[in-house]
Amino acid sequence: MCELLAMSANVPTDICFSFSGLMQRGGNTGPHKDGWGITFYEGKGCRSFKDPIPSAESKIATFVTEYPIKSEVVICHIRQANSGNVCLENTHPFTRQMWGKNWTYAHNGQLEGFKQALPVSVHIPVGTTDSEHAFCWLLDQLHFKFGSQEPPTQALFEFVALQASKINTLGVFNLLLTDGDYLFAYCSNNLHWITRKAPFGEASLIDAEVVVDFKEVTTSNDIVTVVATQPLTDNEQWHKMSPSAWHLFKQGQSIAASR
Amino acid sequence: MCELLAMSANVPTDICFSFSGLMQRGGNTGPHKDGWGITFYEGKGCRSFKDPIPSAESKIATFVTEYPIKSEVVICHIRQANSGNVCLENTHPFTRQMWGKNWTYAHNGQLEGFKQALPVSVHIPVGTTDSEHAFCWLLDQLHFKFGSQEPPTQALFEFVALQASKINTLGVFNLLLTDGDYLFAYCSNNLHWITRKAPFGEASLIDAEVVVDFKEVTTSNDIVTVVATQPLTDNEQWHKMSPSAWHLFKQGQSIAASR
Repeated sequence: MCELLAMSANVPTDICFSFSGLMQRGGNTGPHKDGWGITFYEGKGCRSFKDPIPSAESKIATFVTEYPIKSEVVICHIRQANSGNVCLENTHPFTRQMWGKNWTYAHNGQLEGFKQALPVSVHIPVGTTDSEHAFCWLLDQLHFKFGSQEPPTQALFEFVALQASKINTLGVFNLLLTDGDYLFAYCSNNLHWITRKAPFGEASLIDAEVVVDFKEVTTSNDIVTVVATQPLTDNEQWHKMSPSAWHLFKQGQSIAASR
Repeated sequence: MCELLAMSANVPTDICFSFSGLMQRGGNTGPHKDGWGITFYEGKGCRSFKDPIPSAESKIATFVTEYPIKSEVVICHIRQANSGNVCLENTHPFTRQMWGKNWTYAHNGQLEGFKQALPVSVHIPVGTTDSEHAFCWLLDQLHFKFGSQEPPTQALFEFVALQASKINTLGVFNLLLTDGDYLFAYCSNNLHWITRKAPFGEASLIDAEVVVDFKEVTTSNDIVTVVATQPLTDNEQWHKMSPSAWHLFKQGQSIAASR
């Protein structure tokens, strides 16, 4: 399995605190030693840092931890390989373009019989993971359903949720997907989220001896949501998502969810 | 205008030496202060580092200079904006997927009337540069010509060269394109290349007081080609490409060229 982390914020915000906790799980406090990656959005543009080595040993991960990149949406993944070799092309997140946007995707879980169940024809995987294959299948479905015209937001993400529930029948499919504006999370069995806003308090990482007082690094207007497979702090109340539930976040807030 | 740099090698090789020269031209020895980016291939996978700020001031560029990533193919770009704002989505190189491969592209030059002359329908730009637009148009042409089946190498790159010559009629179009295996270079007005192999000698950067003795960092089997808009060293013989000429490199060697 793997671990997922994402952020949606209403102002460019750095994710150094959460990332420094998560990266410890990549070979240190957790077994997810088969690579890691993180994608930061700044407007419509995005940039990724990734490494097919354990995040706890990665100099690039250390650099990202210490260099605060301010972003409105971030998706991060640390990998424990179960499908596909440990190599760069199998390292999440995956980014592809559709409708003039960068779409970034990361998956936690495992899918059985995915090649037969999820045939692809337009979007062809580069690597050999179940995860990238499912991403390509999802993009194919969006392409066949909506063509060259991006649909309204609600129709789009309700359709994504429906496809995610189909993929989920093949195993475990916790999904994070973003276009840099919206952050979509589908829970197969393990996803938690928390929205931080004024009055901000202190948060203490589970995986490292780090405490941050968000009052000191925010303004009273800031709203930031963090989504993760497992809670990253031990003194805050995280929402546990139910199996088959989904949430759509924008600018730090949940704006739609499964009923 | 901008500056381009690329490498093709028969063994994973770091580009720190050449990159450290080029990045000085991003706000220090040159005016290319509107961002920079570099894409490294490792097998079919690739990873990019980019920043919409001057490379000479970029902490990420400093990190890349000091952290030797070994790669078989690299494409690098430093930008002096003439089409499109200075922002992340307008920062080269651009990477998109086709035929289960990562295709990475960078452009030096300027194109007039590109939106009318190069209509796109399948591959839609994220940003607003002439460069990304021309990349999307090129991918559209490949898609319409060859469909879902990647053609043989010679047919592919002769077609790419033909499309490059069409784009070139709109202005200046020096092009670097790779799938991680082949490196294609099309010269509009400014491209130089050099192949280094045994017996290796010393090379001295033009833009920084750095000398490297390649004998000390190579084996006698290594073959490495570097392509750049302008020569990066002052004590080696670079080949100047002619206008409308193209070269195809693989594993460090020129394997095909325009007649």
